[in-house]
Amino acid sequence: MPVYKAPVEDVMFLLNDVFPIERYNNLPGFADATPDTVEAILGEGAKLCEEVFAPLNLSGDQEGCTRHPDGSVTTPKGFRQAYEAYAAGGWMGLAAPEEYGGQGLPSALNTIMQEFVSSANLALGMYPGLTQGAIAALLVHGSDEIKKTYLPKMVEGVWTGTMNLTEPHCGTDLGLLKTKAVPNPDGSYAITGTKIFISAGEHDMAENIVHLVLARIEGAPAGTKGISLFVVPKVLVNRDGSLGERNGVSCGSLEHKMGIHGNATCVMNYDGAKGWLIGEANRGLNAMFVMMNEARLAVGVQGLAQSEVAYQNAVAYAKDRLQGRSLTGPKFPDKPADPIIVHPDVRRTLLSIKAFNEAARALVVWTALKSDVAHRSSDEAERQQADDHMGLMTPVVKGVLTDLGFDMAVRAQQMFGGHGYIEEWGMSQFVRDARITMIYEGANGIQAMDLVGRKLGKDGGRAIMGFFNEVGAFCQENAGDESLKGFVEPLQQGLGHLQQATMWFMQNAMAKPDNAGAGATDYMHLFGLVAMGYMWAKMAKAAQARKADGNGVAERMDAKILTGRFYMERMMPETGLRLARISTGADATMAMPAEMF
Amino acid sequence: MPVYKAPVEDVMFLLNDVFPIERYNNLPGFADATPDTVEAILGEGAKLCEEVFAPLNLSGDQEGCTRHPDGSVTTPKGFRQAYEAYAAGGWMGLAAPEEYGGQGLPSALNTIMQEFVSSANLALGMYPGLTQGAIAALLVHGSDEIKKTYLPKMVEGVWTGTMNLTEPHCGTDLGLLKTKAVPNPDGSYAITGTKIFISAGEHDMAENIVHLVLARIEGAPAGTKGISLFVVPKVLVNRDGSLGERNGVSCGSLEHKMGIHGNATCVMNYDGAKGWLIGEANRGLNAMFVMMNEARLAVGVQGLAQSEVAYQNAVAYAKDRLQGRSLTGPKFPDKPADPIIVHPDVRRTLLSIKAFNEAARALVVWTALKSDVAHRSSDEAERQQADDHMGLMTPVVKGVLTDLGFDMAVRAQQMFGGHGYIEEWGMSQFVRDARITMIYEGANGIQAMDLVGRKLGKDGGRAIMGFFNEVGAFCQENAGDESLKGFVEPLQQGLGHLQQATMWFMQNAMAKPDNAGAGATDYMHLFGLVAMGYMWAKMAKAAQARKADGNGVAERMDAKILTGRFYMERMMPETGLRLARISTGADATMAMPAEMF
Repeated sequence: MPVYKAPVEDVMFLLNDVFPIERYNNLPGFADATPDTVEAILGEGAKLCEEVFAPLNLSGDQEGCTRHPDGSVTTPKGFRQAYEAYAAGGWMGLAAPEEYGGQGLPSALNTIMQEFVSSANLALGMYPGLTQGAIAALLVHGSDEIKKTYLPKMVEGVWTGTMNLTEPHCGTDLGLLKTKAVPNPDGSYAITGTKIFISAGEHDMAENIVHLVLARIEGAPAGTKGISLFVVPKVLVNRDGSLGERNGVSCGSLEHKMGIHGNATCVMNYDGAKGWLIGEANRGLNAMFVMMNEARLAVGVQGLAQSEVAYQNAVAYAKDRLQGRSLTGPKFPDKPADPIIVHPDVRRTLLSIKAFNEAARALVVWTALKSDVAHRSSDEAERQQADDHMGLMTPVVKGVLTDLGFDMAVRAQQMFGGHGYIEEWGMSQFVRDARITMIYEGANGIQAMDLVGRKLGKDGGRAIMGFFNEVGAFCQENAGDESLKGFVEPLQQGLGHLQQATMWFMQNAMAKPDNAGAGATDYMHLFGLVAMGYMWAKMAKAAQARKADGNGVAERMDAKILTGRFYMERMMPETGLRLARISTGADATMAMPAEMF
Repeated sequence: MPVYKAPVEDVMFLLNDVFPIERYNNLPGFADATPDTVEAILGEGAKLCEEVFAPLNLSGDQEGCTRHPDGSVTTPKGFRQAYEAYAAGGWMGLAAPEEYGGQGLPSALNTIMQEFVSSANLALGMYPGLTQGAIAALLVHGSDEIKKTYLPKMVEGVWTGTMNLTEPHCGTDLGLLKTKAVPNPDGSYAITGTKIFISAGEHDMAENIVHLVLARIEGAPAGTKGISLFVVPKVLVNRDGSLGERNGVSCGSLEHKMGIHGNATCVMNYDGAKGWLIGEANRGLNAMFVMMNEARLAVGVQGLAQSEVAYQNAVAYAKDRLQGRSLTGPKFPDKPADPIIVHPDVRRTLLSIKAFNEAARALVVWTALKSDVAHRSSDEAERQQADDHMGLMTPVVKGVLTDLGFDMAVRAQQMFGGHGYIEEWGMSQFVRDARITMIYEGANGIQAMDLVGRKLGKDGGRAIMGFFNEVGAFCQENAGDESLKGFVEPLQQGLGHLQQATMWFMQNAMAKPDNAGAGATDYMHLFGLVAMGYMWAKMAKAAQARKADGNGVAERMDAKILTGRFYMERMMPETGLRLARISTGADATMAMPAEMF
């Protein structure tokens, strides 16, 4: 069975040395989050993930979910108990406001826990993950009454949540959606329509399921400006908070998917179901967008999470599997062959994954802390700067960490040879599960267009200029540090490529937007390469500082620096290729007549 | 259900215009292969694949194979009949010698047919594919008696074949294998051991299954020099050719795999089974290597094949799916949205796949024709040159066409958004099926090591120098052709990178072989990029020549040239990145202590 150990030590390096969490102790909730407390909390979370969630991953994949003739859905054996353990541990409300039963801790901690949960069991982790997304939306847009009705139960974890956007004919282009909302005399709405791909839409883990549903109020404008957001509970809630009648919403069928078999992906039928408006009428997309940054960040984390767990298993296998001899002569002459970790191509593969994982984790922690600043700081300038960062980095984290998370899981699978293709080893599942992260919560091509088409030019390019300034300043400050030479120079070069690509869009994409479209995905990856390169430079600097400390930390810090060096030498040079592609423009891409494809 | 149309037209462009098959008409079997005949044959093959094989692909994946308590295996519904139609059509022996019932046609035609078969139904196509591999081995190494006993039935298709190499503890490193062969008094051997991952090891399609098995004769040296090859039939064959008793070999279980569910991947138990030596004792690996070039070429073709069929379905979906509007204003204002093929990022994705598919197909046809020359030419110099080409290009075709074939299938799947993740659309299957091609017949890291460690330096580098000379001469000859400027210059640059990388190995890998190991995969892909670039330059030249012809061919030729231009602009520049990685050497890769991974 696959192994998993949550990378608490690596997270603590980030929170102690790279982005010291103590600096944030003026923010609400951070005063309680001292490094020791954080380490203790993450240790508990790690235990739950390693001992309860992970052992159910393979069996959950093999068993899948079952829909019964009455529309009810059974999740795989053990999922319900594991979910209950998660809820009982207070994890659902880790970062939720105390007034609704949460612990009010930094949301960054929750994001870190999401990595552990997703590595251990992505399909299972999606049930609470979607609930947290729904909680976030209700917190921002729900009326006091709605918040009082739903949030305490959701934060406690006895009710779960979902998001209902997609319909058979529309996913990306929500302007086409047809689900109707007709006002009832009591102020509620009757919701009618079909939603597809609804994760956790029906299951046996909770007493109630709180669906957030996009629908069009009768008579509303066509397109995206006529869409409203509704809360539609599976079971209606009485005035006293007790559960009442079953609402007119049900699971019509389950999808058969490539992966995340343990999560129930439902076709949801709304047949005059009672729903209540969240936020303003016709402003439903805006309400959704508020929670989208966090949701997309969470999906990026899932990509990293699959790469991490796949990596851990590949390393274990590479140390164990005896096959062939080292090119420089036998390393274990007493054994019938050397373990495959002696082979350069195996090490190259493992280091590529490791270098990605650690940079991606840093990017996630950095961005998650910004999310806390954006929501909790009392300093407007600081909030704005953090919000700029979030807007810019969200599509990068989502798109790059899932594209590469999948790619890295595939590489890890390759280390197993034929055994990687056999389901019992679990590597196939990591790959199949990782694949969805590139698709849901906005397919990665959409992330790239969001970055290039919306985020770059926003507020006169304030966010991207802020990023350039920060990375540029880092390079300048550390240019004289001989111990960082192998980091600062390639970072500077990568930054230069990113700046050139940005400039190229400014000069060529205004008049001809196809130039932006044809270069968007390459730009997103170029951005990711530079952002991860910046993370490596910062980590290398922190590791150099820590090396002097002694206490047996030097070897770990050396490993950190070596991994960063590998990134700079082998992965960072890709920025030049990305720039070259972008600079060719859209001509070759757009010239082909559709019928000649 | 997924669609498939065999690319006969594209193949005929290659055989008429790029590598004119008429030039080979002095080779045995080619005189009958006039362009008209070839087109007619491929048309028949296309029909079988489109109408019989393809409709069983999705259902075969969903149903899978079933092993019964008596060890017998049932293949998915329809597979047996489809296989019988293939055998009845004479496809098994298309290129086999007429004396054993074959048609003696060029093996290049068989390779082309393998693409069609693998696109239509990879799992089904593996049954005859493995049989053809076994036929090839018996042809070269079998005694006359053995050939007479087995080949006519195999060529007819009433018996199928397998290859039994892998054991639980050894795949790549066959020197570790334990299966034993003990001489019987009658000249046969008693074979005992367990083989795993045996594709088509047991099934219900044929009267008999002819296993080729690697085993160690009692008392033979340890390691690779003590391995012999045996033929072990499932049912013993009487002297008169009729079937006798059941042999001591059986299927112990079926593997549960990520894909190719329709193919029975068996654990095979040999329990004193009767086997006969093929070729010399202790030279079994050499006997296997002879057929390995063809087998690896066939697996490369499977990678291309999955990319091709995934591409065709992605194009159909992109023309059909309405979502969003073109960046340059609505293209279909009367529809609720534009088809997604108007979006640059969708076109970029599709063109990447198309540019790969067509170059890969050219590389396959070129190499397959060389295989015919190597086996059939009466001119020794020509044979040697063709053999050099085969040795050099085989790992490239296997490694690059499967790495990219998988990657391209993933990209095609991405075009479907959430629908790509749902099994009923078939895109998940193409990805899952493509994944095995990177692993079996030598995992791709092994292909890279074969290229760098064995093929580059062989015969003083004769093969690689031959390749450099050919591509260099092409560039020189066409340097003045203005219409090929966009092809020759990038090709020249890519060739330069490949030459620099080769030189770097010569200078740095002799003393330090890890430098070769750490750069091998990048080198293999660098080679692939240049080889495919050369294919595009040749195709562009041929297309330019054809454009003048009229007959409505101009539009198709323009599409060919545009696709090639896309390759040169967007894909060829990757050569620089590959060179940069190789040139960093092995230091960062080898420095990390194993326990710090």
